[in-house]
Amino acid sequence: MAEELQGNCLIGQTGGPTAVINASVAGVVAEALNHSCIEEVYGALNGVHGLLNEDLVDLASESQQAIRGLRYTPGAALGSCRTKLKKPADFDRVLEVFKAHNIRYYFHIGDGDSQETAVKLGETAAAAGYELRVIGIPKTIENDISATDHCPGYGSAVKFIAASVKELALDAEAIGQGDLVTLVEVMGRNTGWLAAGASLAKRRDHPNDPPHLVYLPEVPFSNEKFVEDVRRVLKREKHCVVVVGEGLVDKDGNYVSVETSASDPAGHAQLGGVGEALKDLVESQVGAKARVARFGVAQRAAAHLASKTDADEAFLAGQAAVKAAVNGETGKLVTLVRGDGDVYTCETGLSALSDVVGNLKKLPKEWVNEDGVSLNFQFFRYATPLIQGEVAVPFDNGLPAYAKLTRESVDKTLPGYEG
Amino acid sequence: MAEELQGNCLIGQTGGPTAVINASVAGVVAEALNHSCIEEVYGALNGVHGLLNEDLVDLASESQQAIRGLRYTPGAALGSCRTKLKKPADFDRVLEVFKAHNIRYYFHIGDGDSQETAVKLGETAAAAGYELRVIGIPKTIENDISATDHCPGYGSAVKFIAASVKELALDAEAIGQGDLVTLVEVMGRNTGWLAAGASLAKRRDHPNDPPHLVYLPEVPFSNEKFVEDVRRVLKREKHCVVVVGEGLVDKDGNYVSVETSASDPAGHAQLGGVGEALKDLVESQVGAKARVARFGVAQRAAAHLASKTDADEAFLAGQAAVKAAVNGETGKLVTLVRGDGDVYTCETGLSALSDVVGNLKKLPKEWVNEDGVSLNFQFFRYATPLIQGEVAVPFDNGLPAYAKLTRESVDKTLPGYEG
Repeated sequence: MAEELQGNCLIGQTGGPTAVINASVAGVVAEALNHSCIEEVYGALNGVHGLLNEDLVDLASESQQAIRGLRYTPGAALGSCRTKLKKPADFDRVLEVFKAHNIRYYFHIGDGDSQETAVKLGETAAAAGYELRVIGIPKTIENDISATDHCPGYGSAVKFIAASVKELALDAEAIGQGDLVTLVEVMGRNTGWLAAGASLAKRRDHPNDPPHLVYLPEVPFSNEKFVEDVRRVLKREKHCVVVVGEGLVDKDGNYVSVETSASDPAGHAQLGGVGEALKDLVESQVGAKARVARFGVAQRAAAHLASKTDADEAFLAGQAAVKAAVNGETGKLVTLVRGDGDVYTCETGLSALSDVVGNLKKLPKEWVNEDGVSLNFQFFRYATPLIQGEVAVPFDNGLPAYAKLTRESVDKTLPGYEG
Repeated sequence: MAEELQGNCLIGQTGGPTAVINASVAGVVAEALNHSCIEEVYGALNGVHGLLNEDLVDLASESQQAIRGLRYTPGAALGSCRTKLKKPADFDRVLEVFKAHNIRYYFHIGDGDSQETAVKLGETAAAAGYELRVIGIPKTIENDISATDHCPGYGSAVKFIAASVKELALDAEAIGQGDLVTLVEVMGRNTGWLAAGASLAKRRDHPNDPPHLVYLPEVPFSNEKFVEDVRRVLKREKHCVVVVGEGLVDKDGNYVSVETSASDPAGHAQLGGVGEALKDLVESQVGAKARVARFGVAQRAAAHLASKTDADEAFLAGQAAVKAAVNGETGKLVTLVRGDGDVYTCETGLSALSDVVGNLKKLPKEWVNEDGVSLNFQFFRYATPLIQGEVAVPFDNGLPAYAKLTRESVDKTLPGYEG
């Protein structure tokens, strides 16, 4: 048992929300209140903005009901951000904020790259001789964090995508006459985890079920093969459902999409338009009708269809972060570790935070069938357990009733920061 | 009580599916089996294609489970079609098919315009002295059938749209900093019923809740006003959610859309969606970030989020069609009639089928506020009851388990039809 570190804890949310990122906040809050060494439980508003501007809220004063509601509420209840801290002066400022509020535990919920902020915060504190325990909690629908078997947020996104593909396929089957191609463009940046997940819409032992063709960023795209693939399916079926990852590239590594010149503040190239690009190909080369569905942000926001497994694991990750920190750990990422048995089990582990940054996990190529457009049993064995169970979202007046925090401000004690 | 007409009944589904079009089939089948004058219950595969090609299936031989499952299954279980019968020879052929299978009751599930086929089938039979009772059952997510208070399919589409807007807004609120515009393009063709329905995402007495701006095809669009509207919201809120109907027009009646660089094989410039057009305006005129969500066919296929009120009324409409036909009615459309009381009630009525065709119901202008971008209490009073209740969709292995008919063919007795 580590020496007890008395002080306050702080939670920050960063990056794009997921259906379950708030469940991790709920896990931290619920667990923090079990430990007497943790006095106050604070949240940083809008991630690093809150850290810099001393915009903190008191999470311990929220109602039990509100914190429980976070387990099924999409968005980021504390607000999120797209920026990373870069300048040394910024880190010094955050340390001042931590000192001013006796923050001794910092929980950083974010994707792999955003954990760089957590790493550097820990280093800044250590260099200043300020005792601080920093634990990262993974979140991303893209599932591209290498250290963890899978990432909270992924299962719910896949559940939404696979269910929607199943529904779109029923619609297309009703009106297709061997001439209708439904193109579904899904997120996932440069990895095919989400696109692959759409395959879960297939029934076991029904390889010809929709989605008929899945194009992954990990498999170089060829116009000619695509046209052949679609023609083959349309000969066999009344319609063809194509799922395509937004980050699809050709053999030279160029995006198959109208790449805009814009990039987001974190420097990620903005992708999109691959669905429209394939629609052009279908109409001009195959001569069939094509329609494009682009779920967009719904993939990470459709909490009414979240995976219970995913939501529970996101909560568990939050709890595990607190337990680890109280036990003296710092500079670690909470990971999800799958059991070896035939029946799916999952517990948490810890990995060095510094190993996580810039370490993108791609979909294993050996999980893709030789046809390049379908997944084999290894993927199904991996992904199927992650979408199991439904979260019981309460409904009010016909719509999901999501939680809203009161966000009671913590008094500021420092002068404003000009940055 | 009308004279009893002994014979078989046939159901056809036409046009785009809805989340509850199959519930109407279930209503017909369930009710038909209550009447001894109806012997066999058949379905026409792919609407008028099935009628012409004598592609009939035996619905009475389906399991109870499968028919019950239709009450929550999207798509069109019998298959649908996009075509209308036009040539007199086609109608003569369908009459031959009816005679060959002793079809005395025909139930036509479709939108307003598609009921023309039902009208003409009735006329063809009457002219030939063949006793046939034809009843139309309304279906459309667009809610644009004039004879009925509202249309089966609308409530579920609105429930999905409003819930999704609520979720997207939570996502946008988490990352917006007074600079993010979420554009949601919804279906509805030339009417604003669906776009207006997104407003149900607002809490009662919270007019500033998202969606902040709703642009309806019934209100002529102006670029200048749009830019002002968005600027006003972004001054007040961290983000702006805009809902726009696909059929938006300017003051000259031209569709609001954008020319893309893509062109079709004939070299004609292709028009982009209204969402993309507004995105361009936001980026170039307002200087804010914009993202477009386009739910597409999910609006009519997302049965996992169907309205129980809607699904029950669709089933009721199917039952009412059978009761009306058995009672001697023909050439009628089943309508939904709202009670006068403060508490929502709904029963069915009948309207002349011939009045329905080409009679588009627009959203009443007096339900739109003076700002042109929000709806008043009359719309809320109208639409709120239609999204109440959730359909209990069973889940299997993490995904909705929808019903599938076995579609046992009825033996053909006629030579093929060349058309």
